[in-house]
Amino acid sequence: MVKRYLSVITLAEALALVERSFPAVPGAVRVPVNAGAVGRITAEPIFARFSVPAIHISAMDGIAVRSADTVGASEQRPVTLPDAARVNTGNIVPPGYDAVIMIEDVWINGETYTVRKPVSPWQHIRPVGEDIGESEMILPRGHRIRPHDAGALANYGVTEVAVRNVRAGLIPTGSELVPAGEMPPPGKVVESNTLMAAAVLAEAGVEAHRYPIVPDDYGLIRDAVRRGVAENDIVLVSAGSSAGTRDYTADVVRELGEVLAHGVAIKPGKPVIIGRIEGKPVVGLPGYPLAAATVLRELVMPLISRYGMPVREPERVAARLTTSLHSDIGTDEFVLLSAGRIGDHWVAVPQSRGAGVQMSAVRANGYMQITAQKEGAEAGETVDVRLTVPRAEAEEAVLVTGSHDPALDYLADLVRPRGVDIHSTHAGSMGGVIALKKQECHAAPMHLLAPDGTYNTHYLERYMPGADLALLCVAERQQGIISRDGLSFDDLPGRAFVNRQKGSGTRMLLDHRLAEHGINPASIPGYEREVTTHLAVALAVRTGEVDAGMGVYSAAKALDLAFVPVATERYELVMHRSMLDDPRIAVLVETVSSEAFRRILRDLGGYETDETGALRELRG
Amino acid sequence: MVKRYLSVITLAEALALVERSFPAVPGAVRVPVNAGAVGRITAEPIFARFSVPAIHISAMDGIAVRSADTVGASEQRPVTLPDAARVNTGNIVPPGYDAVIMIEDVWINGETYTVRKPVSPWQHIRPVGEDIGESEMILPRGHRIRPHDAGALANYGVTEVAVRNVRAGLIPTGSELVPAGEMPPPGKVVESNTLMAAAVLAEAGVEAHRYPIVPDDYGLIRDAVRRGVAENDIVLVSAGSSAGTRDYTADVVRELGEVLAHGVAIKPGKPVIIGRIEGKPVVGLPGYPLAAATVLRELVMPLISRYGMPVREPERVAARLTTSLHSDIGTDEFVLLSAGRIGDHWVAVPQSRGAGVQMSAVRANGYMQITAQKEGAEAGETVDVRLTVPRAEAEEAVLVTGSHDPALDYLADLVRPRGVDIHSTHAGSMGGVIALKKQECHAAPMHLLAPDGTYNTHYLERYMPGADLALLCVAERQQGIISRDGLSFDDLPGRAFVNRQKGSGTRMLLDHRLAEHGINPASIPGYEREVTTHLAVALAVRTGEVDAGMGVYSAAKALDLAFVPVATERYELVMHRSMLDDPRIAVLVETVSSEAFRRILRDLGGYETDETGALRELRG
Repeated sequence: MVKRYLSVITLAEALALVERSFPAVPGAVRVPVNAGAVGRITAEPIFARFSVPAIHISAMDGIAVRSADTVGASEQRPVTLPDAARVNTGNIVPPGYDAVIMIEDVWINGETYTVRKPVSPWQHIRPVGEDIGESEMILPRGHRIRPHDAGALANYGVTEVAVRNVRAGLIPTGSELVPAGEMPPPGKVVESNTLMAAAVLAEAGVEAHRYPIVPDDYGLIRDAVRRGVAENDIVLVSAGSSAGTRDYTADVVRELGEVLAHGVAIKPGKPVIIGRIEGKPVVGLPGYPLAAATVLRELVMPLISRYGMPVREPERVAARLTTSLHSDIGTDEFVLLSAGRIGDHWVAVPQSRGAGVQMSAVRANGYMQITAQKEGAEAGETVDVRLTVPRAEAEEAVLVTGSHDPALDYLADLVRPRGVDIHSTHAGSMGGVIALKKQECHAAPMHLLAPDGTYNTHYLERYMPGADLALLCVAERQQGIISRDGLSFDDLPGRAFVNRQKGSGTRMLLDHRLAEHGINPASIPGYEREVTTHLAVALAVRTGEVDAGMGVYSAAKALDLAFVPVATERYELVMHRSMLDDPRIAVLVETVSSEAFRRILRDLGGYETDETGALRELRG
Repeated sequence: MVKRYLSVITLAEALALVERSFPAVPGAVRVPVNAGAVGRITAEPIFARFSVPAIHISAMDGIAVRSADTVGASEQRPVTLPDAARVNTGNIVPPGYDAVIMIEDVWINGETYTVRKPVSPWQHIRPVGEDIGESEMILPRGHRIRPHDAGALANYGVTEVAVRNVRAGLIPTGSELVPAGEMPPPGKVVESNTLMAAAVLAEAGVEAHRYPIVPDDYGLIRDAVRRGVAENDIVLVSAGSSAGTRDYTADVVRELGEVLAHGVAIKPGKPVIIGRIEGKPVVGLPGYPLAAATVLRELVMPLISRYGMPVREPERVAARLTTSLHSDIGTDEFVLLSAGRIGDHWVAVPQSRGAGVQMSAVRANGYMQITAQKEGAEAGETVDVRLTVPRAEAEEAVLVTGSHDPALDYLADLVRPRGVDIHSTHAGSMGGVIALKKQECHAAPMHLLAPDGTYNTHYLERYMPGADLALLCVAERQQGIISRDGLSFDDLPGRAFVNRQKGSGTRMLLDHRLAEHGINPASIPGYEREVTTHLAVALAVRTGEVDAGMGVYSAAKALDLAFVPVATERYELVMHRSMLDDPRIAVLVETVSSEAFRRILRDLGGYETDETGALRELRG
């Protein structure tokens, strides 16, 4: 039997449903001002327990005087004060005294003090209650406590405050899950969704409780949900929300309460359950991490916000989209992006949209929404990017689009602490040329072998005529055949092979060599199967699924595979020459030329570093 | 003997001094991914411990097939598959199978599966390493870990990460200090600076250790500083940094290491000490909380940032300054402000600049810098406001400038949870009229008695001719004589008195009544002494310093004082009529008219609520 979703509702309908189903009734908890109060929201107004100052005190180091005694004092007629009292800043002004004179303005001789000008009453005295009066309201309810608010509260005698509180129970379910720290056997995965959700909720001050993993067993899931509802204000059940054969969440919610919705037209995240048990929201999250994160952000956090918790709004930039995105009418789709500022405009490069590629969120610094009314977004369109990093950090993004090499990751590692955040998009060498031509990246890594045996310049001159370019050599690197058994180029015919995508430099090199060697691609089974990185090639070899592929030495080495060299190619980062003035690019160029980077290349192996850091120019 | 600062240096010099004196050598600490990793900065690159998926898995609920078996399938010629295998999302694709067909596209009959179209190889299969390959770099060093990064790390087998770490020791010194939670006797204050500093540092991921309070004793302070330096990367000594008779910090630093600077031309915050002991920074903070906060933010946090910790940059708005501010050339001054958006421009109202008024920071939502090169800032000038709240929260600010009444605080409390953040500036009724005329506030509370016995309209017509105004009655409130012994208006001559500032409605009411009663102000000692709030009047009475003052009933009641009514006046919130369209003002109007607010007024006492919520219009 195939279960189906009850009925899919739109995101707007889901938000309205949540709003009318769960009236905002946030709880409160008392927390010490000096531990855990900062960042929380006051649940009631807070009043000063005493006045500050509680008594007149001196605002200066000096002497306390009776102002009347100084009347008529002048340079010509100094007045020696009979009973002035020495006071430091913060000392009590003795009763009867009504002014303080700064020590710099006093002539001191033993115990006597002389002044040469009169003083106004109350000068340099901080009167009772100057800062705050007893019983005065310090903060209204609904205020987010900042560090200096906490200091002030302590100063005014407040040691504990009532702050809004929401308890969230997070229940991971699934027989395929192992807890973090265990090595998952094949077909099992680490339970990380409740870890991610707890961290998101904690940022909004929610008290998140993670429960142990519950296997796919109806009774156990029911018991866990029942307990979660009893102990929390909201319950999130991770996975089991689809319509597969072992997705029990909806049935459990139906038994204990009611399913308000099953399926929301949101991507990723469609298989979500919105339920209510004992008046409390119980949300079934989809299992894919990106889908779970999207549902959490778009459906759960608005509810948390309405409960009065401080959910921080993302900063935004308007950016030019590099790639057209199709999206279904009726579905709100959220697409992860890398946004970077190129000159004075922002560019947004979509990440992989696969729901299973959690790295997309790690690599991205923002996301965009394609609303249900739209069929997608066009390349070149200005889109509203919500950042997942502070805007100042997004300013550090350097978009690198083209051919990927593991060395780029190490370069990213070297420059990150210097305020440069490399966002690599694996588009292949030709993809890099196109991105560069459209000014959609800062730099394009490439290794395009021309018929005359030169690298890169031939294609750049052809596809970007007139452009002023700079070519920074990363390394001369070896490409070769990756295999388990040390196969060489000529062994390829008849062997199970995995290829790289069309337009990649590696594919062009392969085709060039096949032609040279007179080998027909049709003689290589798997020549049509394309993957997009060197490591993906190596992985396919390592699992035994294929016998060979072509790639760089470091990928073979990382997975302990054999490598037989085929060619050495010039791998260069190409950019518009004007880009050299960008301080982020300057850091990049400097780092590529550094001895530290050369050492890393030598350690990785398969790179010749003589040309590393060499800068060529191509004048248009 | 009067000690002097060694020599005062500029803020720019101090920053340069700190930069060259303390090379960035941040430490690292290993933290579990599921506790405390989020928000921290990676100290080294992090690699995947295994591939995800580790084996080919199904991306859908459906059946695993050999794609070759489906070749030629069509509506006319369905193909029944001999040995398809049922798989759920995430299940292992059995060896030998190379595609998955969604369950919706399969005709099921008992154990046999029929399909009506062919399938491409690798369809709906998540290949090994699709998300990440074993050994691939997940994050470079220098990356701030976000919640979804933590989820991904866990998913890829990483359970612990090395993150940058800085340990800061915070040493409170001063015999006048009592720990938070104790009631300070007269002349003593609660130690709150290290609490505030610890919270600021914690927001940047710094491990802050607060040490016990050290009394003003050279030996004890020296021992505490020595221990602090041994146990931390940076030490902050709170107070004792001035040049008073018991300011030992500089001498202690000199004995244990060296004083690099004593005195920085920054306001508030001048008496700061920058020292170095065993190569580590030891900073003497000034004692005033606002001064300590400024030094922390402007001098210490840049160092923490250079140590690689995530110090968040404030958001900024450009705002029109309402009041001219004088500042000394050569001094960098930081002025706390309340910034609010009025229509489509931002306005910034300076808070009190007294270093002892910690409430200024509580009330403010931002601050501006007057650089050392400038003599000040002019009213009307556009200034760069750095916000101490998220920008979305600053959008909630409603600037209320004019006569203060405690009821406004309760109104602020009622509207705060509804997204309205009232920023009250106590400028007196006439100050409110002026602010309103210059469009420098959203609303002006006032109670201006005209010679004809009417309130407010007379002065508004005179000073704002032609303006379309709305007057919202907060209450008709009683003004009276506040005293310890029940003095009445006619008892005033000869009694020690405290007055309100010129331009305040209360002062105008007093003068009006004095004239009516034929009382000469000169017959009232203290008539010249001005304070700016009702509560300040009541406090001066309560401490015994004066016998009487004029103010509202609630102020007398708050401090258990006697109150003899003098007059009932119409206290109104006045605004431009167009302002009624602002949703924030709508909330304000609705709340003033609410029964909840009336109940509060009745509980406070001294208010008549018949007119509360009444809206009058004044057409220009």
